Amino acid sequence: MSASRQSLWARVGGWLAAGVVAATLAGCATGGNMGTDPLPSWNDGASKQAIVDFVRDVTKEGSPNYVAPSQRIATFDNDGTLWVEQPIYTQFALMIAQLKAAKPRPEWVNNPTYKALMADDMKTAMAGGEKALLGLLFQANSGMSVDDYDKAIRQWFATARHPTLKRPYTELVYQPQLELLKYLRANGFKTFIVSGGTMEAMRPWAEEVYGIPPEQVVGSSQTIKYDVATGKLMREPSLFFLDDGPGKPVGINLHIGQRPILAFGNSDGDMHMLKYTTDGPGRRLGLIVHHDDAQREFAYDRQSSMGKLDKALDQAPANKWIVVSMKKDWKQVFPSAK
Amino acid sequence: MSASRQSLWARVGGWLAAGVVAATLAGCATGGNMGTDPLPSWNDGASKQAIVDFVRDVTKEGSPNYVAPSQRIATFDNDGTLWVEQPIYTQFALMIAQLKAAKPRPEWVNNPTYKALMADDMKTAMAGGEKALLGLLFQANSGMSVDDYDKAIRQWFATARHPTLKRPYTELVYQPQLELLKYLRANGFKTFIVSGGTMEAMRPWAEEVYGIPPEQVVGSSQTIKYDVATGKLMREPSLFFLDDGPGKPVGINLHIGQRPILAFGNSDGDMHMLKYTTDGPGRRLGLIVHHDDAQREFAYDRQSSMGKLDKALDQAPANKWIVVSMKKDWKQVFPSAK
Repeated sequence: MSASRQSLWARVGGWLAAGVVAATLAGCATGGNMGTDPLPSWNDGASKQAIVDFVRDVTKEGSPNYVAPSQRIATFDNDGTLWVEQPIYTQFALMIAQLKAAKPRPEWVNNPTYKALMADDMKTAMAGGEKALLGLLFQANSGMSVDDYDKAIRQWFATARHPTLKRPYTELVYQPQLELLKYLRANGFKTFIVSGGTMEAMRPWAEEVYGIPPEQVVGSSQTIKYDVATGKLMREPSLFFLDDGPGKPVGINLHIGQRPILAFGNSDGDMHMLKYTTDGPGRRLGLIVHHDDAQREFAYDRQSSMGKLDKALDQAPANKWIVVSMKKDWKQVFPSAK
Repeated sequence: MSASRQSLWARVGGWLAAGVVAATLAGCATGGNMGTDPLPSWNDGASKQAIVDFVRDVTKEGSPNYVAPSQRIATFDNDGTLWVEQPIYTQFALMIAQLKAAKPRPEWVNNPTYKALMADDMKTAMAGGEKALLGLLFQANSGMSVDDYDKAIRQWFATARHPTLKRPYTELVYQPQLELLKYLRANGFKTFIVSGGTMEAMRPWAEEVYGIPPEQVVGSSQTIKYDVATGKLMREPSLFFLDDGPGKPVGINLHIGQRPILAFGNSDGDMHMLKYTTDGPGRRLGLIVHHDDAQREFAYDRQSSMGKLDKALDQAPANKWIVVSMKKDWKQVFPSAK
């Protein structure tokens, strides 16, 4: 671990490390059936019961639904499922920050999208269309080495704050999901992120915040070339793979190589991952976070600029996907301030 | 685990499982410094000493070269590094078998490459050039679902035998490398395959033979599409990513997200992976298998139709890569017959 990574994550590392060790020991001692509630931030109810029943059933030797540990694959969307995605995806906030920090190119100066971004006028910036916005962001977030971009990402996360919630982005993760990730791992699951965002924006902090190592972070990726002369991996200004919607089962196959038995999402972009997961043979579990908590987070129900939940919510009953209400099912949304 | 996978690997599973458990327990009890030789199939000498010295140094707390477990990444090429690659890559043997089993298409009937392959005349088949050969093989190995192709691969491995060594391909893995993989894992390393071959041809058996789970198998990949109507992942007749040569550092970044501290290869296709690995800061180890053992395996030194070792061997001294002689450094090449 580099010194910069140490200082960046020192403040979030302590409570996580302690919690992981305790959960693992408890899981070893009792064969996964922990004496204390492993999901204290989940209110008792149908959602929590469905999770606990599922985990007990697939881990119980002799159960007709028993699944060997090597096949206990659980996949989680990131934006809106493991952490906040409003008012804009953190990935966009990061890419916009890189654009603002970049030396302005002559062709940008009169570009209305660029001017709007520099003036913090997101509404006008997005009015020009996703293509114009992404085109600019890809340009500003390429041309450097993978190592240099990694440093810039770590620096940004060390100081950036959410515009309304005023906390570091990595503290705006959902406490019930941190507990669920640990609970699954204590029961022999491997936990993966499968995000529409790019892997390099999550890998620097996912292990310390979620307990998910870099190789278990699946996401979209930019085109990368190895420069034989300098020995550097360089970022090209184009998308290599879009891990969203029907791309999520493809990304799962590419990076994980097994069909998950549990998938958790929160938007139509997760619908195909949920379907691919619950289509498999044997017992499966699909879950959807429903953002209905205006007081503690954001209530955007089916529609928002980020993460529409239109079709997935309609398809949930027929597919027996569990719709998790943030308002009713979660006792606490974010980890307590330190 | 499916029933077919059980029966396919039952014969190789036993000795591996026993060995893995023993190595892990020994590693736990002694903090990684095992009392008995963890590398019994390696002859004493400079190569073995370099490996043991490296592992001790990077795992010793307080050492200036100490590396945290989460960053102990070791990558191994597959063909010619972990298992036999002569007379042709097993991947090609598998793809040719699928071509032979496929219903002949009208456009193939008068194709000289197709005719040569059907007549087991590899020399003529390869004379038409790599492009003609690969084009045919990609066609015959696409158009079906990922699940159906997976079944076909498992069936092929269950019965296929190496043409001259007459053993199942999965028994033609190198015993010293099986020991090295276990030794590294017992010392907190994560072990990855980084192969020019496709992931789907290795993932069905890599965990039981090498102890490497599917998500830690990195390789080339064919284009896959998720068919929304049927919910199936379908194989398209084109290459998505070539994980070879300068593609290996890119594949490592894509699938692992960290620079390895140890890399093991055997050909020019591994040279960039070795360079990318040993270019990193701190202590690093690069190793190359030199195939110089005509009696127990194959001696092809620098040149063969598969796996040229021309530039990598020249660059080894300047980069301090260890050249491992199969003849001198390995007491035993393959696992004993069962």
